[in-house]
Amino acid sequence: MTARPFLYDYWRSSASYRVRIALNLKGIAHDSASVDLVRGDQRSPEHLDRNPQGFVPALRIDGLLLTQSLAIIDYLDETRPEPPLLPPDATGRARVRALAHAVAMDIHPICNLHVAAHVMARHPDAPEAARQDWMVHFITRGLDALERMVGAGAYCYGDTPTLADICLVPQIYNARRWGVDLTRHPRLVAIDAACADLPAFADAHPDRVKPA
Amino acid sequence: MTARPFLYDYWRSSASYRVRIALNLKGIAHDSASVDLVRGDQRSPEHLDRNPQGFVPALRIDGLLLTQSLAIIDYLDETRPEPPLLPPDATGRARVRALAHAVAMDIHPICNLHVAAHVMARHPDAPEAARQDWMVHFITRGLDALERMVGAGAYCYGDTPTLADICLVPQIYNARRWGVDLTRHPRLVAIDAACADLPAFADAHPDRVKPA
Repeated sequence: MTARPFLYDYWRSSASYRVRIALNLKGIAHDSASVDLVRGDQRSPEHLDRNPQGFVPALRIDGLLLTQSLAIIDYLDETRPEPPLLPPDATGRARVRALAHAVAMDIHPICNLHVAAHVMARHPDAPEAARQDWMVHFITRGLDALERMVGAGAYCYGDTPTLADICLVPQIYNARRWGVDLTRHPRLVAIDAACADLPAFADAHPDRVKPA
Repeated sequence: MTARPFLYDYWRSSASYRVRIALNLKGIAHDSASVDLVRGDQRSPEHLDRNPQGFVPALRIDGLLLTQSLAIIDYLDETRPEPPLLPPDATGRARVRALAHAVAMDIHPICNLHVAAHVMARHPDAPEAARQDWMVHFITRGLDALERMVGAGAYCYGDTPTLADICLVPQIYNARRWGVDLTRHPRLVAIDAACADLPAFADAHPDRVKPA
């Protein structure tokens, strides 16, 4: 018997949030543990053995230990095809991946915890203000482009949720956390609201998985 | 007749370099034009119509205009399967994607031109030094993890080049550009050298495509 999948998670990690949504969309029952990024658990030898990058998420599944949220989600989609997280045609997949990567490559990493910490360290006079400016600048810039890139359907691409929505929703959560003005992004806000109506997205929300 | 593929390129862009390697590995004849990122061509209305993100590369192919280097490479691999850029099994694909994303998500975006420019603007007293410190810090950190993640074969994963090598080689070029000490990364340096022996990689090198 293969062990039940196990997610090394952190409630506020966008990358973990993506994998939680994907696991829910696929209906994959699993257990999880919190790796407390604020306490520094990700730098423990135990976690670095799981993931030399010192990031969450990591997922034990099918006897494997997988890292990198989008690689994990591709694996889930390939091994558990229903419901699909990518369109059936190569063109559609290219569009969805471009949208997903516009968030996962071009916004999220720049605003990651360790990058923000480095920015703060370089501005010892006003670290909080430096972080705040940094977050708002790069999230706004990225979402401005994304607003022009998404389609006219209910979701980022067409009328079913895809990998692009899985990346968008945690980024919008993050934008709100940092007080980004989203009035410039009505399409993205509408898509985020449509996703919030789906249990797979709602159940993955940070507030629902935050350790007590 | 479908038009010949056309790449909007920039010689020093890591993301463009990746797509050049992939086009070469697939043997896809194409034309290209330089979008001069230093001159600011990427912010022209013409280029923003191609890509609202204002990034290179963008690729016209099969009547489509595609953006995001890894989405483009996945599209090429799906529509031109030989030689494959990903392993045949889901586990191998997850490993290769994790390696590729450890570069393309966790190093490259943080060191992108527009991010470095923002760092420099925040340090008007010593902008060049601030940029240099930034580059070395994040490239070193990322490569340290990657050195632990790659396999024991000739390339990042096994004995044929994959998407992971396509991401690694431009990052090593970039590391050398910024004077990163690579003595800590003997495996990565060896893989980079193995790739350099392949015409598909050598012909894509920035020095080979730099405008006169």
